[in-house]
Amino acid sequence: MEEEQHEIRTEMCSSGKEKPKADQLEFGRIFTDHMFLMDYSDEKGWHDPRIVPYEPLSIDPSSMVFHYGQSVFEGMKAYLTSEGDAQLFRPQRNFSRMNHSNNRLCIPPIDEAFALKALKQLVALDKDWIPEAEGTSLYIRPFIISTEAFLGVAPSTHYKFIIILSPVGAYYKEGINPIKIAVEHDYVRTVKGGTGEAKTGGNYAASLKAQEMADEGIAQVLWLDGVERKYIEEVGSMNVFFKIDGKVVTPALNGSILEGVTRNSVIQLLKHWNVPVEERKLSMEEVIKAHQDGKLEEAFGAGTAAVISPIGELVRGEKHLEINQGKTGPIAKRLYDTLTGIQYGKLEDPFDWVEKVENVKESALKASS
Amino acid sequence: MEEEQHEIRTEMCSSGKEKPKADQLEFGRIFTDHMFLMDYSDEKGWHDPRIVPYEPLSIDPSSMVFHYGQSVFEGMKAYLTSEGDAQLFRPQRNFSRMNHSNNRLCIPPIDEAFALKALKQLVALDKDWIPEAEGTSLYIRPFIISTEAFLGVAPSTHYKFIIILSPVGAYYKEGINPIKIAVEHDYVRTVKGGTGEAKTGGNYAASLKAQEMADEGIAQVLWLDGVERKYIEEVGSMNVFFKIDGKVVTPALNGSILEGVTRNSVIQLLKHWNVPVEERKLSMEEVIKAHQDGKLEEAFGAGTAAVISPIGELVRGEKHLEINQGKTGPIAKRLYDTLTGIQYGKLEDPFDWVEKVENVKESALKASS
Ligand SMILES: Cc1ncc(COP(=O)(O)O)c(C=O)c1O
Ligand SMILES: Cc1ncc(COP(=O)(O)O)c(C=O)c1O
Repeated sequence: MEEEQHEIRTEMCSSGKEKPKADQLEFGRIFTDHMFLMDYSDEKGWHDPRIVPYEPLSIDPSSMVFHYGQSVFEGMKAYLTSEGDAQLFRPQRNFSRMNHSNNRLCIPPIDEAFALKALKQLVALDKDWIPEAEGTSLYIRPFIISTEAFLGVAPSTHYKFIIILSPVGAYYKEGINPIKIAVEHDYVRTVKGGTGEAKTGGNYAASLKAQEMADEGIAQVLWLDGVERKYIEEVGSMNVFFKIDGKVVTPALNGSILEGVTRNSVIQLLKHWNVPVEERKLSMEEVIKAHQDGKLEEAFGAGTAAVISPIGELVRGEKHLEINQGKTGPIAKRLYDTLTGIQYGKLEDPFDWVEKVENVKESALKASS
Repeated sequence: MEEEQHEIRTEMCSSGKEKPKADQLEFGRIFTDHMFLMDYSDEKGWHDPRIVPYEPLSIDPSSMVFHYGQSVFEGMKAYLTSEGDAQLFRPQRNFSRMNHSNNRLCIPPIDEAFALKALKQLVALDKDWIPEAEGTSLYIRPFIISTEAFLGVAPSTHYKFIIILSPVGAYYKEGINPIKIAVEHDYVRTVKGGTGEAKTGGNYAASLKAQEMADEGIAQVLWLDGVERKYIEEVGSMNVFFKIDGKVVTPALNGSILEGVTRNSVIQLLKHWNVPVEERKLSMEEVIKAHQDGKLEEAFGAGTAAVISPIGELVRGEKHLEINQGKTGPIAKRLYDTLTGIQYGKLEDPFDWVEKVENVKESALKASS
């Protein structure tokens, strides 16, 4: 991308939409006044970065994204501190993961630093949309879609990179709450050699059926590997951790697991606290055995949406494994409190994870002038 | 769908676009004057079927199809006979396969008979777009996309079913021509328990990388199973057949292979001709062994686009297996001639495969009145 094209043109909406009340906040249904867009063509590369009013996209019915699913996305959040500052949590990791996904999906890489700059500018402009209430935040969805109007099965020559923002409510309305999950036996999310380590639509499309077939009360399904159907991979759209006999174990990144930003942060925190943590193959059998032996102390999912999601019960066919008497365990609680504490600026940030959205008003003004 | 909603409203374009010249015809780049659309919502079911001018869709950036790949598609063709009639080849199979895909992707089923009626009406209206030259046809792309403006990972409550049409050139410009394919070892297309038997975008997105990495001259990659990486599944976007020691063998439908309309037609024709045909597991080793023993007589892909695609050379790592001296084999040739003969109305249709688009002018007139 040429230097002068790094300038982000901004077209402000004429009148802002009404913002949702604190008690109306859901997940991902309401969007802010503006969005960021940038186009790609094989001739021009990524070009025309712009912030424009949030509005429908006009896309040819033959565009590749509708037919061959060539797309990637990311998910992260902006948090409001008690001082009224907006801040992001390790956003660099999301854009570098996006490029990792891009590589698998044959999508041209983005300039990560520029994407972060654009994101900050967008968040700054729509800063009034970041909700204030405890546990609420502004969900950030960067995504790339293939837009060439062509039905051939080949990488697209045209793309759009878009960032949209959605104010979201607290994940736990009544405090952190353990969920019930079920081991999935019929369906798999992905397999080694597939797209599992990329954040691409097809993985999520493939996952819908298992959730639909799951019994009532099952919050998420636990995915086993697609080859041997023995090893634990992820739970729903979270990475998963088990505390067994004093050690915290999480499946090693094997090519079919998404490398979560939360997962990485959990591992760093545990090491910092001198809690033994292992990234390795973990079979369902081992977890069941640990439970039988009274050594399965805790289990929890980790991801941007819930941060930490304690698992109170694990269902496998007829077997029901209760974990930590169905209650949130001490490690899950400590991780949740620490991570959210850092995210909302209430706790110190020893790892430099937080990225402030600086000069909010100034950058917005500069952009629109 | 209510009975009265079965009426297809038609909005004609004001002036038709210029049609491509016979020698300009490619695949899937040019679209006809009209398209068919129908909406779905959980409250109304499928509703508002309509034929309208071909134009961009206006879709919210948060629509699920952009993020979670919940989509399915089909591909078939309309052929012009020497009498000037338009005809379809086993279109019922495409719409029933679409419902099979819908089921896997948690998309509500369509009324197959109604979809066929809508397709015929659309083809009739744009009949002048069906090219006349030898081997050309009108490619038909029905597809469904999820359009709910919501970022939750759950089946969408809103969809669009769309049919677009594209005049396409002859697949073989200089007669049927053997291709070179390579066995794929790093990447897999899908796996048992995944979405392989559904025609959904994610499978095609996953397949792009292998093709990108393939050596020059490799037309398509041969996919092995995702579990053992031993058994043959498909080649590119075609089903695959090997003639070994007098018998034609094709991989059995195992849950990760797409059931091709061409595949089914090939099997029926072979049975009709008393050529032994087997649907079973077929390992790469068996094919290599047959080649060593001089018993690999032919190999070919089968799919709507090329109909029959003879395989002249199979590359596996350092090994190059030449098949039938790199030439089109007699079975491939006979299948190609028979299938295209039936499709273009030059040969008898003993299996009742052809579906005429009747009363072309009349139905178009009725629709627009
Ligand atoms: C499949 C999957 N695994 C894990 C995660 C957790 O990743 P992160 O912690 O970056 O949110 C996500 C998404 O959030 C996911 O979609
Ligand atoms: C993956 C795949 N396999 C096989 C086929 C062949 O199916 P059909 O003969 O119905 O065109 C196709 C598509 O055309 C395909 O995409």
